[in-house]
Amino acid sequence: MIAADESTRSTETLNDVSEIAVLERLFPRLPASSAQLLGPGDDAAVVAAPDGRFVVTTDMMIQGPDFRLAWSTPHDLGWKAAATNLSDVAAMGARPTALVVAIAAPPSTPVSVLEGIADGLRECCEALAPGCGVVGGDLSASDALTLAVTAFGDLEGRDPVRRSGARVGDVVALAGRLGEAGLGLELLFRFGVDDGGVPDAERARAAKAQYPEQIAAQLTPVPPLECGPAAALAGATAMLDVSDGLAIDAGRIARASGVGINFVSGALGARVEVALGGGEDHGLLATFPPHVSLPDGFRALGVVTAAAGEVLVDGEPHTQGGWDPYRGWDGAAG
Amino acid sequence: MIAADESTRSTETLNDVSEIAVLERLFPRLPASSAQLLGPGDDAAVVAAPDGRFVVTTDMMIQGPDFRLAWSTPHDLGWKAAATNLSDVAAMGARPTALVVAIAAPPSTPVSVLEGIADGLRECCEALAPGCGVVGGDLSASDALTLAVTAFGDLEGRDPVRRSGARVGDVVALAGRLGEAGLGLELLFRFGVDDGGVPDAERARAAKAQYPEQIAAQLTPVPPLECGPAAALAGATAMLDVSDGLAIDAGRIARASGVGINFVSGALGARVEVALGGGEDHGLLATFPPHVSLPDGFRALGVVTAAAGEVLVDGEPHTQGGWDPYRGWDGAAG
Repeated sequence: MIAADESTRSTETLNDVSEIAVLERLFPRLPASSAQLLGPGDDAAVVAAPDGRFVVTTDMMIQGPDFRLAWSTPHDLGWKAAATNLSDVAAMGARPTALVVAIAAPPSTPVSVLEGIADGLRECCEALAPGCGVVGGDLSASDALTLAVTAFGDLEGRDPVRRSGARVGDVVALAGRLGEAGLGLELLFRFGVDDGGVPDAERARAAKAQYPEQIAAQLTPVPPLECGPAAALAGATAMLDVSDGLAIDAGRIARASGVGINFVSGALGARVEVALGGGEDHGLLATFPPHVSLPDGFRALGVVTAAAGEVLVDGEPHTQGGWDPYRGWDGAAG
Repeated sequence: MIAADESTRSTETLNDVSEIAVLERLFPRLPASSAQLLGPGDDAAVVAAPDGRFVVTTDMMIQGPDFRLAWSTPHDLGWKAAATNLSDVAAMGARPTALVVAIAAPPSTPVSVLEGIADGLRECCEALAPGCGVVGGDLSASDALTLAVTAFGDLEGRDPVRRSGARVGDVVALAGRLGEAGLGLELLFRFGVDDGGVPDAERARAAKAQYPEQIAAQLTPVPPLECGPAAALAGATAMLDVSDGLAIDAGRIARASGVGINFVSGALGARVEVALGGGEDHGLLATFPPHVSLPDGFRALGVVTAAAGEVLVDGEPHTQGGWDPYRGWDGAAG
C-alpha cells in the first residue's frame, strides 16, 4: 500500500479535487506494464505486440447489476475487474500484457474509493499476471459507479485456442474452482442482506467470516491465468473461461466444435448441480488430445463425444437455464 | 441500412429478447475491421499489429453527463462514440484499425436503440476510417445507457506524435473545426429545452433545423482522421485532439513541451473567444518545423514561443477555466 495522509484526504470527494489531482493520486497506485511503450498522459497509449498481433477483450461492471458496495470493497472491485478480464485473455492461450480502465463515478464519491480500486487492480496484476499493468484510462461522471476494463494479451507466436477445436475422444479438463463463486453469491444474498433483503455491509462481514472461501471466490476470484498459455503449449484443442457456469460454458464448446461434452459426475465433487450451475468461477475449461499429459493445474472432468452440441453427465443429457444480463437483475443497486 | 421487419421488431426491448438474439441482430450492422484476425464469439478477439505495436485509447459516454436522448439519436451516439475515440488514435499519428465496444442499457431499452448505435458506429467507420471496425464487445444491464469504446491504431512504423515535442519557432496549425461543437451545445441548452430547462426532443428538432452546422458539429462530429498520419509523415513535432477547447488543449502542448503557444487572433475567425473556448470539436492541433509545407487540411494559427507553459493570443497571455467532468455536470439525465 502507498502511504497517504489519510487524516486530511479520507473525506475528499471527486467534486472537491480536480481531475488532474485525482489522476496524480491514482497513477502511482496503478500497476506498471512491461509492454508499455508510451503510457498515460497523451491522447492514447502505445503497447508492444511482439508477434504482430494482440488479444483484446472488454467487460463492464456496474454498481447494481454487477456489484454492491455493501458487499465489495473498492479494492475487491479493482481486483475482480482485472481478474475477470485477464481470465478472458488467458482463455485464448495468451499472456496478459496490459489493461486500459475507464471509471465513471458520482461526484460525491470519495477519492479514496478510486484509490482502493487502483490498489485492487495493482495487487491483482502483481499476484496473477506479473508484468501486466494499466497503460491508459478515462475518468468520467455518472450516477452509478461503473468500471469498463479492456485487457490485452500476447500469444507469443502461438495460435489462439478457440472454442471450436474440440475433437471426439479429447479429454475435458478444468483448471480452477468449481461452483464456489456461485455459492458465495448465494450466501451473500441469503446472509449478507438486512431483513428487507437489501445488501447490508455488517451482515456481509459476518457472512464473510463464516464462509470466507466461497465469498472470496465470488468477490475476489483468483483465476489460474498461467494455465492458459500452459494449455496452449500442451496442445489444447479448445478452451474458454468458465464465467456463466460449467454446463453453460461447456455447451459453448460443444456447439462451436460440433461435439458433445460428457462429464463424469464423480469428478464434479460432492454437489454436482452446484459444480455444473455456479457462475463466475473463472476457471479455464479446455479439451486436450487423449495422449497429452494435462498441464499443472488441470484435472480431467470428462471426455468429448459425438453428441453434437450436447452437454451430458455420465452419458445423460443435462439441461439447465442460462444467465441473461437483462433478466438476471432485479433493478436493485445495493 | 440493413433491412429489418420493423413492424414486428420495433417494439421489442432487451428484456424481451435473449442476449444471443440481440447480438445476432447487432453483428451484421457492425463495421468489419480489416485488421481482425479473430472476431466476436470467443473469449477475446485477435487483432493484427503489423509493426509490433498498437495504439490504444478508451472513453466512456454516459446518458446524463455526456449525452441526452432527447437530443441525440442512437445513430448519433454510435457515430460520436466512434469518432471521438478514433480522433485520439489519429492524434498519435496512427491509422485507426479496430474498436471494442461495451454497451450497458436498461432492460426496457428497445433493441432498435442498440441497432441504431451499431448503425452509427458502422457509418462513422465507413465514412472516416475505412477498414476500421468492431472486433469485440460486451453487453450488460444498467440504469443509464452507457457506451465504453476502446479504439486501436497502427503507427505503420512511425514514431507516435506526442504532446511534448513542440520547439520554439514551430508553426502551430489546426485541421478541423473551431468552436462550432461548443456553439452547438450552447444552442441545444438554449433552444433544445422545454420551459423548465429540460432537454426536449421537439424543440431540439427545431433548433437543429435552424442551426444545422453547429448542432451537427456537436452531435455527430467529423474529425479529420486522415490528417493524423499525414501530420506525422510531414514531421509534426507535437499533436493532440482538441476535445476540451483550443486554449486548454494548446496549454497541454505548451506544458508538455516546455514552450509557449502564441495564436494570431486574425487566424481564429470572427469570434476569437468561441474559437479558443469551445470544446468537443475534435480537430487536430499540431506543431510543425517552420520549413515544412503544412499537409492538406491544416491551416496555420500561430507559432511556438519560449514562454514556457503559456498560451498567448497576439503575444498577450490568455487565461480561462478548464472543464472538469465532476463539476461540469448538473446531475440531470435528459
